[in-house]
Amino acid sequence: MSERIHRIPQARLRAFCETLFRAGGIPSDDAATIAEALIRTDMRGIHSHGVIRSARYLDCIRAGGIKAAATPVILQESPATVAISADGGLGIPAATKANQMVIAKAKKCGVAVGTVSHSDHYGAAGLYALACADEGLVGFSMSNTCPLVAPFGGAKATIGNNPFSYAAPGGKYRAVLFDICMSVVASGKMIIAAANGEKIPYGWLLDSEGRPTDDPNAIYHDGILLPFAAHKGYGFAMMVELLSGVMANAGITEDVNSWNTIPGRDANTGHCFMAVSPEFFGGLDNFRRRTDLLIERMKATPPAEGFDCVRYPGEIEFAKEADAEANGVPVPEASMAELRRAAGLLSISTAELEA
Amino acid sequence: MSERIHRIPQARLRAFCETLFRAGGIPSDDAATIAEALIRTDMRGIHSHGVIRSARYLDCIRAGGIKAAATPVILQESPATVAISADGGLGIPAATKANQMVIAKAKKCGVAVGTVSHSDHYGAAGLYALACADEGLVGFSMSNTCPLVAPFGGAKATIGNNPFSYAAPGGKYRAVLFDICMSVVASGKMIIAAANGEKIPYGWLLDSEGRPTDDPNAIYHDGILLPFAAHKGYGFAMMVELLSGVMANAGITEDVNSWNTIPGRDANTGHCFMAVSPEFFGGLDNFRRRTDLLIERMKATPPAEGFDCVRYPGEIEFAKEADAEANGVPVPEASMAELRRAAGLLSISTAELEA
Repeated sequence: MSERIHRIPQARLRAFCETLFRAGGIPSDDAATIAEALIRTDMRGIHSHGVIRSARYLDCIRAGGIKAAATPVILQESPATVAISADGGLGIPAATKANQMVIAKAKKCGVAVGTVSHSDHYGAAGLYALACADEGLVGFSMSNTCPLVAPFGGAKATIGNNPFSYAAPGGKYRAVLFDICMSVVASGKMIIAAANGEKIPYGWLLDSEGRPTDDPNAIYHDGILLPFAAHKGYGFAMMVELLSGVMANAGITEDVNSWNTIPGRDANTGHCFMAVSPEFFGGLDNFRRRTDLLIERMKATPPAEGFDCVRYPGEIEFAKEADAEANGVPVPEASMAELRRAAGLLSISTAELEA
Repeated sequence: MSERIHRIPQARLRAFCETLFRAGGIPSDDAATIAEALIRTDMRGIHSHGVIRSARYLDCIRAGGIKAAATPVILQESPATVAISADGGLGIPAATKANQMVIAKAKKCGVAVGTVSHSDHYGAAGLYALACADEGLVGFSMSNTCPLVAPFGGAKATIGNNPFSYAAPGGKYRAVLFDICMSVVASGKMIIAAANGEKIPYGWLLDSEGRPTDDPNAIYHDGILLPFAAHKGYGFAMMVELLSGVMANAGITEDVNSWNTIPGRDANTGHCFMAVSPEFFGGLDNFRRRTDLLIERMKATPPAEGFDCVRYPGEIEFAKEADAEANGVPVPEASMAELRRAAGLLSISTAELEA
């Protein structure tokens, strides 16, 4: 299954997305923040979390599940910590605010933690961790989701496919950037296998009754994702739930509503951000040099059969981003279809986008 | 392969280990700290990191690879951070000191991070995270190791099997406790398969030439462990290396020496500890109640075929610890053999232990 990829100049796509979001009632600053977040994500090749999400955010606003113009509220704050409520607003602006506060606090205190409750989908987890690394900090970003994954030994999806990301600044290399979810494979892979009429390996998915299956179509019929590495993926899903659900005072597991399936209902998603400053551990320049050394040792590892080289986490995404800077943002046909749908909802012209 | 398990009263085992360590030149306080750490680990059923390690610590001291009476040095400190050098001493006392400082700082600042460089084996990672949880904090503990694992796509062991642990306090339940390493399975499983003359699944191990193998005996011939969940385990191994090697200013990957194979050489291992206080995020009592709710939701998940129930991370270990409190510390024959060997080195009687 190969899909047409459009190439759209960054400025043009940005202008279109901002117009769209403003037309949906989102304040200008937030519209710019969301457009930047989604477009960067497409530039890094993670199309599942790019502009394809625009229409769904607008669906939720129209259905009353997300407040377009909510103002995040600081619930509790200290020099190294902050707890924020997104007040039922969009995830990306509230998460960006919390992450920026964490960055400022970590620079002063050496380490900081921030949580967001009463939020919604926050885009790609890696956006926030990389923003920390770009400021010379080691950053962590995570969010819970509605239940999608079975705990180890379980036959029902009772925990989220909770994304987790970290990033660390390099010198010669921009950063190490790691961004994962907790299932063996993302549901996108099942969708591709189903479209191609292929089977999937046992161990990826359970059917809606909790039985092992090799049929990727089960993903369309309440199939249950399995955690990566059995109890290990389950344990990391619990870690994210403890920090971004339990500690953030957001919804926990079944209290988090799917913004994808029920756009009119408050998601009550939670996020957690952390940053650590290498200035408090021997200095940032020293850290950058040592990160480069680690990266180069990994890249110097002889490749296994079937691999051309060993890459560091984030290497592929940074190469894609550089290509998108030079050649325009890659936007798959499925994402274009959602942009067109969103434009239709708000009577916005897509002429510039299709040019 | 079933092994005889001795049951030794806790106080008796503790007295024996402390005598042993003091005879090896370790100051009394540190001897008590190490004995407690190793015995607790056996009580939780993690015999690979329990008293079996005693003899090897003493080997390293005798060979000059570890200083028996080093004093940890604070290199850099702020209200929420501390960077310590173990000064070539034992890992457990230095790690315990760093972790205790992190606990005290996190209670005041809401979050704290500490690193240890120039250290050695620090026992089970979970010891330190659980100490945080027992003080009402969410705790993280990690350490790098000498290279044992191939990075994703690599054919050589160029990164450590870096342990990672977190723990979070519950109310009705003591804590969630998660403690893992980065390989698909621990090398102990290969050793058992080899002893039983069984094959292992492809995907666990590469032979010394970097080729896939199903022969568990490869573990004895420079076999290379594979990371769990491919790029995911590799990414977590990198995270631990970035915090406990790069940031801690300890050895990085090949600069960390194996204390197991070369006892006379400084290991230069690094560790990192973090703690976050739920008091800064809505209060500890609230956090405990919500952790209990999360645990109970996991336990209420219907079990998959082949499982009797869903457990929360740490559940099995806490049950074993309670049993050991009641019935004595379980000490496998292999661990007893190492205790006897250590006693022989230092002309200590094992009479009380064998009673």
